[in-house]
Amino acid sequence: MLLPEVGNAPSVVSSRPNEDLARRLFTVRRHSQVLAGPLTAEDRCVQAMPDASPTKWHLAHTTWFFETFVLRPFAPDYRVFDDAYAYCFNSYYEQVGARHPRPMRGMLTRPSSDEVTAYRGHVDVALERFVASDVIDPEAARRIEIGIQHEQQHQELLLTDILALFALNPLRPAYRPHSASKIASVDAPGWVAFKGGLQMIGHEGEGFAFDNETPRHQALIRPFLLADRLVTNREWLRFMAEGGYGEPKYWLADGWARVQQEGWKAPEYFESRDGEWFVMGLSGAQRVDQNAPVTHVSYYEADAYARFAGKRLPSEFEWEVAACVNGLRQMFGACWQWTQSAYLPYPGFRATDDALGEYNGKFMVSQMVLRGGSCVTPDGHARPTYRNFFYPWQRWQFTGVRLADDAS
Amino acid sequence: MLLPEVGNAPSVVSSRPNEDLARRLFTVRRHSQVLAGPLTAEDRCVQAMPDASPTKWHLAHTTWFFETFVLRPFAPDYRVFDDAYAYCFNSYYEQVGARHPRPMRGMLTRPSSDEVTAYRGHVDVALERFVASDVIDPEAARRIEIGIQHEQQHQELLLTDILALFALNPLRPAYRPHSASKIASVDAPGWVAFKGGLQMIGHEGEGFAFDNETPRHQALIRPFLLADRLVTNREWLRFMAEGGYGEPKYWLADGWARVQQEGWKAPEYFESRDGEWFVMGLSGAQRVDQNAPVTHVSYYEADAYARFAGKRLPSEFEWEVAACVNGLRQMFGACWQWTQSAYLPYPGFRATDDALGEYNGKFMVSQMVLRGGSCVTPDGHARPTYRNFFYPWQRWQFTGVRLADDAS
Amino acid sequence: MLLPEVGNAPSVVSSRPNEDLARRLFTVRRHSQVLAGPLTAEDRCVQAMPDASPTKWHLAHTTWFFETFVLRPFAPDYRVFDDAYAYCFNSYYEQVGARHPRPMRGMLTRPSSDEVTAYRGHVDVALERFVASDVIDPEAARRIEIGIQHEQQHQELLLTDILALFALNPLRPAYRPHSASKIASVDAPGWVAFKGGLQMIGHEGEGFAFDNETPRHQALIRPFLLADRLVTNREWLRFMAEGGYGEPKYWLADGWARVQQEGWKAPEYFESRDGEWFVMGLSGAQRVDQNAPVTHVSYYEADAYARFAGKRLPSEFEWEVAACVNGLRQMFGACWQWTQSAYLPYPGFRATDDALGEYNGKFMVSQMVLRGGSCVTPDGHARPTYRNFFYPWQRWQFTGVRLADDAS
Amino acid sequence: MLLPEVGNAPSVVSSRPNEDLARRLFTVRRHSQVLAGPLTAEDRCVQAMPDASPTKWHLAHTTWFFETFVLRPFAPDYRVFDDAYAYCFNSYYEQVGARHPRPMRGMLTRPSSDEVTAYRGHVDVALERFVASDVIDPEAARRIEIGIQHEQQHQELLLTDILALFALNPLRPAYRPHSASKIASVDAPGWVAFKGGLQMIGHEGEGFAFDNETPRHQALIRPFLLADRLVTNREWLRFMAEGGYGEPKYWLADGWARVQQEGWKAPEYFESRDGEWFVMGLSGAQRVDQNAPVTHVSYYEADAYARFAGKRLPSEFEWEVAACVNGLRQMFGACWQWTQSAYLPYPGFRATDDALGEYNGKFMVSQMVLRGGSCVTPDGHARPTYRNFFYPWQRWQFTGVRLADDAS
Repeated sequence: MLLPEVGNAPSVVSSRPNEDLARRLFTVRRHSQVLAGPLTAEDRCVQAMPDASPTKWHLAHTTWFFETFVLRPFAPDYRVFDDAYAYCFNSYYEQVGARHPRPMRGMLTRPSSDEVTAYRGHVDVALERFVASDVIDPEAARRIEIGIQHEQQHQELLLTDILALFALNPLRPAYRPHSASKIASVDAPGWVAFKGGLQMIGHEGEGFAFDNETPRHQALIRPFLLADRLVTNREWLRFMAEGGYGEPKYWLADGWARVQQEGWKAPEYFESRDGEWFVMGLSGAQRVDQNAPVTHVSYYEADAYARFAGKRLPSEFEWEVAACVNGLRQMFGACWQWTQSAYLPYPGFRATDDALGEYNGKFMVSQMVLRGGSCVTPDGHARPTYRNFFYPWQRWQFTGVRLADDAS
Repeated sequence: MLLPEVGNAPSVVSSRPNEDLARRLFTVRRHSQVLAGPLTAEDRCVQAMPDASPTKWHLAHTTWFFETFVLRPFAPDYRVFDDAYAYCFNSYYEQVGARHPRPMRGMLTRPSSDEVTAYRGHVDVALERFVASDVIDPEAARRIEIGIQHEQQHQELLLTDILALFALNPLRPAYRPHSASKIASVDAPGWVAFKGGLQMIGHEGEGFAFDNETPRHQALIRPFLLADRLVTNREWLRFMAEGGYGEPKYWLADGWARVQQEGWKAPEYFESRDGEWFVMGLSGAQRVDQNAPVTHVSYYEADAYARFAGKRLPSEFEWEVAACVNGLRQMFGACWQWTQSAYLPYPGFRATDDALGEYNGKFMVSQMVLRGGSCVTPDGHARPTYRNFFYPWQRWQFTGVRLADDAS
Repeated sequence: MLLPEVGNAPSVVSSRPNEDLARRLFTVRRHSQVLAGPLTAEDRCVQAMPDASPTKWHLAHTTWFFETFVLRPFAPDYRVFDDAYAYCFNSYYEQVGARHPRPMRGMLTRPSSDEVTAYRGHVDVALERFVASDVIDPEAARRIEIGIQHEQQHQELLLTDILALFALNPLRPAYRPHSASKIASVDAPGWVAFKGGLQMIGHEGEGFAFDNETPRHQALIRPFLLADRLVTNREWLRFMAEGGYGEPKYWLADGWARVQQEGWKAPEYFESRDGEWFVMGLSGAQRVDQNAPVTHVSYYEADAYARFAGKRLPSEFEWEVAACVNGLRQMFGACWQWTQSAYLPYPGFRATDDALGEYNGKFMVSQMVLRGGSCVTPDGHARPTYRNFFYPWQRWQFTGVRLADDAS
Repeated sequence: MLLPEVGNAPSVVSSRPNEDLARRLFTVRRHSQVLAGPLTAEDRCVQAMPDASPTKWHLAHTTWFFETFVLRPFAPDYRVFDDAYAYCFNSYYEQVGARHPRPMRGMLTRPSSDEVTAYRGHVDVALERFVASDVIDPEAARRIEIGIQHEQQHQELLLTDILALFALNPLRPAYRPHSASKIASVDAPGWVAFKGGLQMIGHEGEGFAFDNETPRHQALIRPFLLADRLVTNREWLRFMAEGGYGEPKYWLADGWARVQQEGWKAPEYFESRDGEWFVMGLSGAQRVDQNAPVTHVSYYEADAYARFAGKRLPSEFEWEVAACVNGLRQMFGACWQWTQSAYLPYPGFRATDDALGEYNGKFMVSQMVLRGGSCVTPDGHARPTYRNFFYPWQRWQFTGVRLADDAS
């Protein structure tokens, strides 16, 4: 998820009262601070790896977004907090100017975490004043909505990136206390059958959506089966025990090369202690919960597992069709689910020309679509048409596997 | 094109008399030798880069293919030429055993080019005897057919890889004499309209096809326009002159990173001499022919050019629909044409389990489909359903651009 | 300076009263805290690059040194602060056990800066109790002395590494306020002549020295001249202006390769703003002081400059001979001075077998000796026989140039 | 040995009759062709790795040397064979112009091996005519002498590089037939004592020497012992069996890092087959000869072995002193012997300014001196003052170990 793909829905915003927008805006803004609460200034500053960003950077970047795209153009008396921040906290908007190199985000010990908190406060005060006015320009309202969604995406990344950081620490710190697994047992997956035909795919209508979910369009689906739950750690341990990571026939060529090059033997964050598997999570290193869905697996691994199991991954359209009908477990709130669909534009998709839309189609190559949402996705952020995407080798996200099959 | 995806067409073979098969087999086998004719033993031995292979390796590997998959299992009295060759000339068949590392293929100064020629002779004699028998096992016939197609693929690679090698030589050697361009002038491209609807895609029937062209299936197409010729060097030089390689807005993020990292300023093999553009080709370095199709561009460049031109690349289905109707120029025989389709399995595709089918689906990630055929594709090898594929950054192949657009 | 080379001087220690040792010990220990004073918890946590270490790591590692080599073996009732710290804060003592990988030191957001301060307090209290006892084992006293010297080395690194970190920050933070240059003008260097012959080199006697300064031995010196001051920024800017960084004839082959590969055009931390040169230092980015010694140059640059100037670098023996006679300016307290001597053992040198001596000779390959001391070397730490050493390409240290010449 | 350091001895040459010079010149020239004799055009073309060069390149480069430095400036009617060759076959003479990148030398399939042979013939004919004239300019004679020495250095490299190439070939080709080992048994090494004092080091007088062997100067030597033979494979296998490659205490820090990074477990070209050690050599892969000197070890390994054996490596001055007295076995003709001396200029050394002298001091950093000569050093090329040098990690040369010790 290289953020943000931004929606194009002015009519939507105008139909919503400002109070609702403001309420949601400040709920989300406060929630970012809540998420950062358990973290020290040091935790917030360090970057685990080039793909990840520091917490402080997430907090500042989402704030810079509102400052740059809402307050500066629409709030005439807005005073920029610090001119240097535009350089520090721009992510990749080429139209907006030069920026600090991504792999160097962790070098920014200054501005301090406290200064970033002050920055957030400064911008929030200005936003409060701005949204309290009687009339908000519909374009400003649209951008606030995007900013809310954008900040939610960064909330997920914040937790994902903190896990990556803590997993590198020999003390294996816990971000939050451990709550014992609630999953007592898991049956064999049920297989739900879906019929084929021309089906409508993508977003249309009132609610918010990113532009990559549009245009809504017909797609031809063949009859298919979908597992009613995700692949569990128990099943994955069996794959490991039966030599799954050592058998080239299960793997895509690129995946097999990666397995050998990086010595993959288990999902990311798994570690063996005296013959027993533990996994590092937001509650620290814990014994692997056999009934929980496997997570932190790459597309390569998901695809290999499907081949091992004699099944396949679903296409993103199959997943969306099933999500609209529903009845399946763990569609949202457990893990993002790899699909066999490459991340490509929908028919008729065109990116807009302004800075916000600058990069709408910019990531549409070499990545695979994930659907659903994970245990760290903010409430209310995901939806059936949502398209997440990562490179097939990435595995620091909360990514898991749902199997599919052709209907005979 | 990481070879070979192999077809599954026993019924096809049985309907063809052995004489035809034999005739085509030895025509193709001889043609490989013809292609290598202008090359010295030194030229045949060296590997230009890890993606490329030496000529000698192509000549030996295609021979090993017949030895391993046809003669050893089906010709009872066949005597293996040299046991060590299996290690040297296996490409990537994991089921068949260990193999020499790909980037080290150019280190094989032994066996010599003459020994490889002798190897080819030995295998050809055995094949002649084998196909002269009254009855050929249909599976053997199927494999010979695959071997023919496989060798044709390597014939194209042989020329492509020799160009890569000669382009690294400061003497800029010519593989063959230069023939003056025959294209006197080129008009603006015409746009041919195609209607949408459910269309059949993929191979079915008598002729040979690789398994990735199957199963034939319905696809939903939207009305579209296709340029009736390829993008020319004149057009590409305008893209360059107008700053195309320096303007991030045209580029996918991955493409822009590559442009900066590798300092791309023109297609592969272009070089500027005193302000004039030359391009290295099989006839040596020549002035760029403004009317000829641009070639040796990556997917990133093709996509950026399309954006610059206000158009898009076709999907592989659009291309195939158009190819079946026809009426467009330069569909085959000029350059492979990048599509905006990721290389993925067709619905219902399943790889077979034997060594030959081992890797049918193995490359179906991160690559983009190309359609058509190039000036170095052997006659009779390409067809409308043929799916070639490369990574989006690769450009040593004869790859060009045909533009598409949505029909309004 | 890959720390520590540790001296072997029991007789020395025994002749010194414990009070003096204790006084020096706690003076040095407190000084580390003073140096870290201006730094936030974030500044202390981040690692600028693999060669550098975080401030917090320096503070903890020097403490771990006393805990491991003094308190654990000699203070019977000492309670280890935290068992996990041995893994986190061991630098490279293989005999003492496994350790956190060096390039990952900056990932240790936990233990926090406050916990490390508490760790320091815990160990200091134990050390105070320990040195207050009537009799200290001479070996313990020897190790305390080494620990003092070791901590002083890390004090220099702490500042050097903070500069490396702040130089990566677009805000160019200042560690301390800027004090205007005191050097009003600089004359042409005077050349001081030294006679040759057999001279004694290396340490012997009462004061502390690292073992690489021993054994004291005779060396044959030829008559030589030494500049009475360091090369200035004014002189270096002339080297730059006259194309020094673009002319291969001045450079060692390895140096020239590095210049081209890394695009060196000036010393480390120099930056051009509107045609004027600034340099990042502990007081932030300041206009280059033309009269100050050039610093942050590699051996390659020092050697190239000497060739440009028609001179050479001194050998470490020449430098030591001159330092003992003295009368030259800027021998200590400005910059470490590259010599043309490779870092090798003195005749008869043998490393000891225990963990402390484990690595005495371990770094004696591929590095060059520097002599003197810099503006960030703790008072009283340097001496005429002191041997510092770095790789010829390193330049984040406070390293400068003094020229030498053969006496005709 | 990055060639050539060139001597400065006009007076020498003038005292030698031209006939002798001519005789030696053509003897050496012919010998290069003899050495290449067993190699095919393919063998001669390929480059095993960036440090190595193709045979054809060695043959052409040594020829280019005579053409560039002798014939073009001194033979007025000389016609250059091919203008493009200057670009192809210059090694690193910056003053002489641009050149083909070193790692790409193996891409030069053209000019062919036959063309290079013709080039050699063309230059040899011109040289014959040139040296047949009554008077040869003394500078030309000096350069011919250098060219002879230079070509001898490349003769050694030719064989060394061919071994590197053949060792990468799974067929393990033999350059020449195997002759059974002549060493029946080896006693424990004898230790020869040498007294210390001021000794003369370096070249002076009539015979040829490279400039890095000058000026002859006094050095202070301490009494020392030198083993009267090289370390054998038997001794090295014991080092391996006793865990030498797994025990950090024997290793320099850089060496230990290299051991782990590259997985060193034995000298270069050793391979284990069913528990027995073989070594690849110019006669193909053979059982390790226990009585033969170990070869293809790096400085890191030599130094680690010495520590394991409780000894040390000799300094280059100790080696030279011993070589002049002599009485030791295997000083020349077996392996180059690592010394503990860094490759640095002798006191008073100054490089000359012309192209030939351009790089005299250019390699004097980060390399270690080797003394002696190896089984592939041309007869008459080595001498007691000869200084060879390589980086401490390199091991494709014929490099071995002679132990030294301090005299008590």
